[in-house]
Amino acid sequence: MKEKYMKEALKQAQKAYDLGEVPVGAVIVKDGKIIGRGYNSKEKNYDTTKHAEIIAIQKASKKMKSWRLNNCEMYVTLEPCSMCAGAIIQARIKKVYIGAMDYKTGACGSVLNLFDDFKFNHYVENENGILKNECENILKKFFKE
Amino acid sequence: MKEKYMKEALKQAQKAYDLGEVPVGAVIVKDGKIIGRGYNSKEKNYDTTKHAEIIAIQKASKKMKSWRLNNCEMYVTLEPCSMCAGAIIQARIKKVYIGAMDYKTGACGSVLNLFDDFKFNHYVENENGILKNECENILKKFFKE
Repeated sequence: MKEKYMKEALKQAQKAYDLGEVPVGAVIVKDGKIIGRGYNSKEKNYDTTKHAEIIAIQKASKKMKSWRLNNCEMYVTLEPCSMCAGAIIQARIKKVYIGAMDYKTGACGSVLNLFDDFKFNHYVENENGILKNECENILKKFFKE
Repeated sequence: MKEKYMKEALKQAQKAYDLGEVPVGAVIVKDGKIIGRGYNSKEKNYDTTKHAEIIAIQKASKKMKSWRLNNCEMYVTLEPCSMCAGAIIQARIKKVYIGAMDYKTGACGSVLNLFDDFKFNHYVENENGILKNECENILKKFFKE
């Protein structure tokens, strides 16, 4: 099941790749259904907030008509940065499944870990390494070219 | 000068107040000119990413046709959360002037300090207490009602 949804996140990453954007994708799942999808489109939109996770949260919130994404899970191909990890906490997402880790800016275990920070009012469960190779490979291919 | 721009941020906070949203406002200044304004509209839009700072960054980026907001300063009435502080770092904003502190979720000195974290590739200068009383009062008034 985890792999099934991470594959959907990878499809989103491929869309970013095809547009010449750093290939990162995310989906949000509730009760087994995808309620939000997003891919990085920062360069195209001249907008640093257009990360995959932010777009997926915006779409899921619109669909749910609520900013509270209780009992929702996110699948994301790359470890979220502090902006995205912060948005995930604010949106009350229950659990985040991560593909590849981001040792330069990752805020879910690499540079710091906002999810494990019990100072916030919401704790986000998290698990990494889901389809790790596939998630890393699309990034490697992008940066090689 | 600092007070002049914080007053503009307070005008944005007032717009949020008038809509029944937690009254937080932000403006982004480059070369003495305001290039982006934003106010919290999370409830109205069912969207946790609609914080004042994110909206101001999106508007300034659109105006600059670049996600890099080099040499820009932000004035914000309340200490940014981790999502917004992360966005400010990503956008390469030079300095942030803060009004009131947020002891529950502030990520610029209260709960944690992302700006002083030298692990990231960009360091954001920051100063707080600009029109502190005015920035606190509008929030106190909102939460009393």
